Amino acid sequence: MALRDGRFENPVSESFGRINPSIHVDRRLFKEDIRGSIAYAGALGKNKIISREEEALIVGGLSEIEKEIEEGGFPFSEEDEDIHMNVERRLFEKIGEAAYKLHTGRSRNEQIVLDEMLYLKKATSELDRSLKATVSAALGAAKGCVEVVVPSYTHLRRAQPASLAHLFLAYCHPLQRARERCSDYWKRLDRMPLGSGAVAGSALGIDRAYLADKLGFSGITENSIDAVSTRDFILEFVWICAEACTTLSRISEDLIILSSEEFGFLRLPDGFCTTSSLMPQKANPDALELVRGKSSRVTAALVSLFTLLKGLPYSYDRDLQEDKEPMFDAADTTLSVLGVVKGIFEGLKVNEERIKLAVEGSGDLIFATDVADWLVRRGIPFREAHRTVGKIVGFAVKEKKGLRELSVGEYRRFCGLFDESVYDLFDYRRSVDSHDVPGGTAFTRVREQIGTLEKALKRGEDLGAGSH
Amino acid sequence: MALRDGRFENPVSESFGRINPSIHVDRRLFKEDIRGSIAYAGALGKNKIISREEEALIVGGLSEIEKEIEEGGFPFSEEDEDIHMNVERRLFEKIGEAAYKLHTGRSRNEQIVLDEMLYLKKATSELDRSLKATVSAALGAAKGCVEVVVPSYTHLRRAQPASLAHLFLAYCHPLQRARERCSDYWKRLDRMPLGSGAVAGSALGIDRAYLADKLGFSGITENSIDAVSTRDFILEFVWICAEACTTLSRISEDLIILSSEEFGFLRLPDGFCTTSSLMPQKANPDALELVRGKSSRVTAALVSLFTLLKGLPYSYDRDLQEDKEPMFDAADTTLSVLGVVKGIFEGLKVNEERIKLAVEGSGDLIFATDVADWLVRRGIPFREAHRTVGKIVGFAVKEKKGLRELSVGEYRRFCGLFDESVYDLFDYRRSVDSHDVPGGTAFTRVREQIGTLEKALKRGEDLGAGSH
Amino acid sequence: MALRDGRFENPVSESFGRINPSIHVDRRLFKEDIRGSIAYAGALGKNKIISREEEALIVGGLSEIEKEIEEGGFPFSEEDEDIHMNVERRLFEKIGEAAYKLHTGRSRNEQIVLDEMLYLKKATSELDRSLKATVSAALGAAKGCVEVVVPSYTHLRRAQPASLAHLFLAYCHPLQRARERCSDYWKRLDRMPLGSGAVAGSALGIDRAYLADKLGFSGITENSIDAVSTRDFILEFVWICAEACTTLSRISEDLIILSSEEFGFLRLPDGFCTTSSLMPQKANPDALELVRGKSSRVTAALVSLFTLLKGLPYSYDRDLQEDKEPMFDAADTTLSVLGVVKGIFEGLKVNEERIKLAVEGSGDLIFATDVADWLVRRGIPFREAHRTVGKIVGFAVKEKKGLRELSVGEYRRFCGLFDESVYDLFDYRRSVDSHDVPGGTAFTRVREQIGTLEKALKRGEDLGAGSH
Amino acid sequence: MALRDGRFENPVSESFGRINPSIHVDRRLFKEDIRGSIAYAGALGKNKIISREEEALIVGGLSEIEKEIEEGGFPFSEEDEDIHMNVERRLFEKIGEAAYKLHTGRSRNEQIVLDEMLYLKKATSELDRSLKATVSAALGAAKGCVEVVVPSYTHLRRAQPASLAHLFLAYCHPLQRARERCSDYWKRLDRMPLGSGAVAGSALGIDRAYLADKLGFSGITENSIDAVSTRDFILEFVWICAEACTTLSRISEDLIILSSEEFGFLRLPDGFCTTSSLMPQKANPDALELVRGKSSRVTAALVSLFTLLKGLPYSYDRDLQEDKEPMFDAADTTLSVLGVVKGIFEGLKVNEERIKLAVEGSGDLIFATDVADWLVRRGIPFREAHRTVGKIVGFAVKEKKGLRELSVGEYRRFCGLFDESVYDLFDYRRSVDSHDVPGGTAFTRVREQIGTLEKALKRGEDLGAGSH
Repeated sequence: MALRDGRFENPVSESFGRINPSIHVDRRLFKEDIRGSIAYAGALGKNKIISREEEALIVGGLSEIEKEIEEGGFPFSEEDEDIHMNVERRLFEKIGEAAYKLHTGRSRNEQIVLDEMLYLKKATSELDRSLKATVSAALGAAKGCVEVVVPSYTHLRRAQPASLAHLFLAYCHPLQRARERCSDYWKRLDRMPLGSGAVAGSALGIDRAYLADKLGFSGITENSIDAVSTRDFILEFVWICAEACTTLSRISEDLIILSSEEFGFLRLPDGFCTTSSLMPQKANPDALELVRGKSSRVTAALVSLFTLLKGLPYSYDRDLQEDKEPMFDAADTTLSVLGVVKGIFEGLKVNEERIKLAVEGSGDLIFATDVADWLVRRGIPFREAHRTVGKIVGFAVKEKKGLRELSVGEYRRFCGLFDESVYDLFDYRRSVDSHDVPGGTAFTRVREQIGTLEKALKRGEDLGAGSH
Repeated sequence: MALRDGRFENPVSESFGRINPSIHVDRRLFKEDIRGSIAYAGALGKNKIISREEEALIVGGLSEIEKEIEEGGFPFSEEDEDIHMNVERRLFEKIGEAAYKLHTGRSRNEQIVLDEMLYLKKATSELDRSLKATVSAALGAAKGCVEVVVPSYTHLRRAQPASLAHLFLAYCHPLQRARERCSDYWKRLDRMPLGSGAVAGSALGIDRAYLADKLGFSGITENSIDAVSTRDFILEFVWICAEACTTLSRISEDLIILSSEEFGFLRLPDGFCTTSSLMPQKANPDALELVRGKSSRVTAALVSLFTLLKGLPYSYDRDLQEDKEPMFDAADTTLSVLGVVKGIFEGLKVNEERIKLAVEGSGDLIFATDVADWLVRRGIPFREAHRTVGKIVGFAVKEKKGLRELSVGEYRRFCGLFDESVYDLFDYRRSVDSHDVPGGTAFTRVREQIGTLEKALKRGEDLGAGSH
Repeated sequence: MALRDGRFENPVSESFGRINPSIHVDRRLFKEDIRGSIAYAGALGKNKIISREEEALIVGGLSEIEKEIEEGGFPFSEEDEDIHMNVERRLFEKIGEAAYKLHTGRSRNEQIVLDEMLYLKKATSELDRSLKATVSAALGAAKGCVEVVVPSYTHLRRAQPASLAHLFLAYCHPLQRARERCSDYWKRLDRMPLGSGAVAGSALGIDRAYLADKLGFSGITENSIDAVSTRDFILEFVWICAEACTTLSRISEDLIILSSEEFGFLRLPDGFCTTSSLMPQKANPDALELVRGKSSRVTAALVSLFTLLKGLPYSYDRDLQEDKEPMFDAADTTLSVLGVVKGIFEGLKVNEERIKLAVEGSGDLIFATDVADWLVRRGIPFREAHRTVGKIVGFAVKEKKGLRELSVGEYRRFCGLFDESVYDLFDYRRSVDSHDVPGGTAFTRVREQIGTLEKALKRGEDLGAGSH
Repeated sequence: MALRDGRFENPVSESFGRINPSIHVDRRLFKEDIRGSIAYAGALGKNKIISREEEALIVGGLSEIEKEIEEGGFPFSEEDEDIHMNVERRLFEKIGEAAYKLHTGRSRNEQIVLDEMLYLKKATSELDRSLKATVSAALGAAKGCVEVVVPSYTHLRRAQPASLAHLFLAYCHPLQRARERCSDYWKRLDRMPLGSGAVAGSALGIDRAYLADKLGFSGITENSIDAVSTRDFILEFVWICAEACTTLSRISEDLIILSSEEFGFLRLPDGFCTTSSLMPQKANPDALELVRGKSSRVTAALVSLFTLLKGLPYSYDRDLQEDKEPMFDAADTTLSVLGVVKGIFEGLKVNEERIKLAVEGSGDLIFATDVADWLVRRGIPFREAHRTVGKIVGFAVKEKKGLRELSVGEYRRFCGLFDESVYDLFDYRRSVDSHDVPGGTAFTRVREQIGTLEKALKRGEDLGAGSH
């Protein structure tokens, strides 16, 4: 007998029936739903709204149901709409009338919020661990190439010589910031919503502190209308995911370009490449392309939620059913692409030969800033030095010569201060080491950074350790 | 034996293996894929690349496979990545070596584009028919309430009396424009891509005109790189859906508000309402809330595609695998919410009693524009008349009187021209009928509009009739 | 002489010249830019790269320039592209050659990041204060209506009686969470980027700790490539704004509906309404509609940034120029709509008469849950009680009677346990007070909540107090 | 005296006053607004609502005002909120009371729609012409390099030899499709909205056909509520722009990569590059990066509009004020980036030397498909041929040999059919010419395509030619 039968004469119309059930989506929350119901039965027992025998019956029945679902034997039904009503119906089949007491004074409006928060605590904890693992892998790759000097790029044009490790470390920092966000977010997620009722709060004097404790929360939500209406706790999770995936899309773009035939600095592990169904020679960076592409679905998940919530009146509206797919998709996608990027850093090969050609190639133009700095050290104002070297570069390009191939005489055409010592500049290790400030690419600084990151990774325990 | 085994020593790594297969998504394209392959086998036969016997074997095998999938007996495999390779593998199991000739000179890059275009032709045709059905339903509702006068609203505040039918007709026009877009889009969709190869075009002199004809297309794509790279043909479909769903979200908002206890103009059919799991009195407009909410996922699908494509280098990149879920989701969602809105218009009840109270209530303020027009007809410049009536309204509100309760003497305090004839204005049928221009709410104009829309609905045949 | 003249023979082409300059946007950062340059001159002086005299000249010139810009007399030039080069050019006009030393070893890539971070610290601090002020105003409104009982709504349908203050407090909590986010974000914003150079780090051994101290930062960025490449520090700010504005859009929707002629619970202050240019009676809630509408531009700002960053290769790319308009727009919009909502809460009038009609109207259906709870207290399992009351409601609606108008005999048709005491339920103050859990709507709980929020508002000092 | 003074006692509150005026945005519509008002005065005169003398006064005054605004002498005022009221106020200053008759029976709700439609007709026409110019430029570039053979790319990995012209032509087709969209959209834009009043239609029997004719529209809108409520006519424009800009972002990405030091196929014209403020050697592709980056703001404009409209009740709501900035920004951005891409194609240089190295480099792997096709022609099923060549490639890579460096003996290890004729395959002109189907890269096919596109560009006249 459906919930609606008391109130309405007509059944759900067929077209509505096609969008009404959410069980195909929210069944994923079965563990959280059952955990919440077990705690709630405890609270009802504590308040003597149900007897201890009924409580035991309910808890036993719910545990069986959890097992049934885990093992794939649970008879899900679209008619029962969602996970809450599916579980209740099954509970009745198992234990009879006592099942109908479980929902006493509880609303699906609060129940779904609890389920989502429990799920998000688990997902956030996993996300943090996965971010950490990916940072570790990138850090591992960095440690192997501190002294490999590559051109650093701005605007996809060669800029200055830099340690390849410095680039890999640049990938670690935003992922570490994503971890900081997980930990900040955790505080807001750690507030138990049960007891909010449909909108006005429980009318049964349910013990919310008891429920918080049983469900592993540090506190409770403070306003029942807020608790059933707002979804910023989902938005914030998806935002963290979207930012992380956008960062990963940039890392992927880099690795795709750096491993192209034309750059050739890196070789991707075979296990992350595929070939073409038509062109047998192809070794395509599909895994990275998927990481790059999948970032778009997480941005879209965020947009979906923002557009969903925009202009929605308080308190609970059925529109909110649409909050779950973007949440799950953001979590699944982010975890899976983090795993891929981790795997790639673990298997990445560096082609030092090709890298050397690139650094030494293109007429030493990569040392132009060093030449400008040389002039500055001899008293030329920087802006003037910059223009002078700009002209030298223009001249060299036209003459098809490298900077080290220009004669001192040629240099002097642009500035009388030049002498033989200018040729000492064309040493890329020296150039790298000159960037000797905290956060710079000098080899010692890069090693310093590695040390700091290693310490940061060791610090602290997992989010929610012990609580779920 | 996987495609990759020739080229690589290592299998797909586990983490990549989790995002690499698309078969769980693109299996939906099996009919299109098989239809394309049957046509392609014909072209290979025609060009004597395969024998007529081989062609017959292939076509027979493919037809069997189609049936297997339809009946749920097909052994899908993640290892074979996608629908194309699943079908090829199965074909080999059925007919042996000839199966390995089907892919001759064909690339998955072009094959997926064909599958998507065939799917989108079907989906666009369905969308157009579904839009038409929803317009018909709204038109039907309009026909039943031409003479029901409601307050029209701007800023959710009562504006002027209007025919309720006029409002329902206002919902029809944007949906008709969506149908125009379907038909415009069709031209761009009606270009057959096969023969584009992986990127450079078929090297087998395949007969593209023959393929177009067999697959029901009016023309062929004109550049092989464009054909495998661009996805504007998906973007445009999703755009049409997103616009339609946003329109439907506004119609839903209207119907939710107009059927609230406080407005009470409309009663939603029971079959589109649900009750609360906690509050037994509730008759909630869940169906409409879902229509409103689901618009967000179609906007998000569009964002997903735009973000996906942004900055992607030519030609095919694996990122494009991510184009299918937003496409399917936009189609499914739009079709399902159109069905719901159609059903609601078919069952909508009008509460004329509550409507009358609203029109006559609130102190006749709804006639304020009529009073201003009365002054204009007596020679007062409109802006001055507007201000005068503004003051009269302010006075009436302060005195807690309706406009018809003010005495002539009170009217004259604001303008000496007033006389008894002002009271004739407070007749909402007269007010409605005064809006007598094409597109206005006068009853005759509303009937005119109904006639025009009915004719428009009858015109023309279904998109793609006969071609697929 | 433009920067490019050293390197290129041709000037910027006309079409590029139309999108190349950013000075119309980044001029807003002049204070931050000059503050950064003064600190940088100090660092150059400290390192003896410039003399103390040159430093004094530079600092003096920059201070003059700041004043010129403030007073509107600064000659901005599109040819100088951006704020950095405009200031440098003007500095040269003022102090000659020393100006050309200011840029020594510094890149615009790091300079713009510094400017943006300084701006965002100011904006975040303002945002936090503005959120606090709006919360205070809503709290003030709540304090005035603790005992005003309204229907609470779910699905825009009357649910249960609740304190109007409880609703207003529900608006406070998400805004307080936004303040928590500001404070969390602050930590990530508080890292000084200067010294990162173009990409590889300063080659001048510049003292970054000195710069951090002078510029009011607690720490420094840890990787020069990360510092010039990533923009998550802007994304995070815009995310906080977008979430806050989406919350405000929901509050606006509520207030628009609750102040409509049909609901009539609230009256908006005149100063936040407008009238129509045609219909003189209108008092339209334009201010709230703009708040609701403007949320879309902040969501769009976030999308703009996500789409911008997606797939961008490391490190600095010129695409990043596009990061500033969404940042400014998010800040400006959020601050202005917060001000409006604050003003509305300060002037909101409650219409207790209309509210009473609504609570007592519609046949006491609002007490249906109370009736179900009554049955539960007499031993009926909740789900059964729910269905029984569902049927009673169906019966009452059909009979056009209110729940208190049904006779005991009629009640007993549905359940034999009913007696006269059921009529005691139809008292909305009793109903409100029955929701007596932390976070519930019982009057004492609402007062408790007010106390907690007042304490929270008093706690803590302003973000960044003293540091800028 | 402000419009509101009749109706309200209090002025606009300060915080609302900061977001209420739209004159800083909608002043751009002054020409359209005045044009509409002149036509409307004609209609009022025709209907004898104003005298011919008043009409002449009004038209004369409006023409003066247009000139004042053009010349920068118009005193815009925030107090008058928008362009409509600014013009009305000024008209009163010029011609006195007759000015107050211009607004008779007209609402700003319809007026703004007219202004926007007139603007969009102009913008769409410009957009179409600008798309055409950019296609012409790309076509021009294509004509210069039909016989330049480059590697075509899939997954940013070398795929098969192709004509560089074929790639440039691939850029033309989606832009031509954008032009088709402009023309389809035009039909929907070509419906005149005036006469819709505030919401219910004009009550003055205004001659809408006359207005349509005077304002250059082919038809009129059919429902007054639809006319003032919906904004799909803006959404559709912005959609067309967003799609075009996303296409341009992909073209930019290509050109940035192909002109990098590592690829070196193309050289961008100096006038579209900039240098670094720190690194004097840099020649950065800033113009293209801005084109790529700016696509994000047009996608965001579309999102802004979708989010704005989502769930908005009919009919006009003030939220709609927010429709103009995304509209203007989409138009401005798209036109400016089209201009840049056009300029780049006009000045692009091809580096045939570097291209030749790339095609001949990397061990002839680019001919792998040709080798597979060779086997197919000798009877090997394609899938088997594909795997065989996959293995040959794997072997060659391991041996660090090119495909042409393998001996016949080595080939025979993989398939006994190989003979000397396999070496004939390693000729990239032959390979290109083998892709001989319509739309393929064979030189004759590319020339065919050029001819077709040239004809298409010549066909048809400009959108709206003569009508505005």
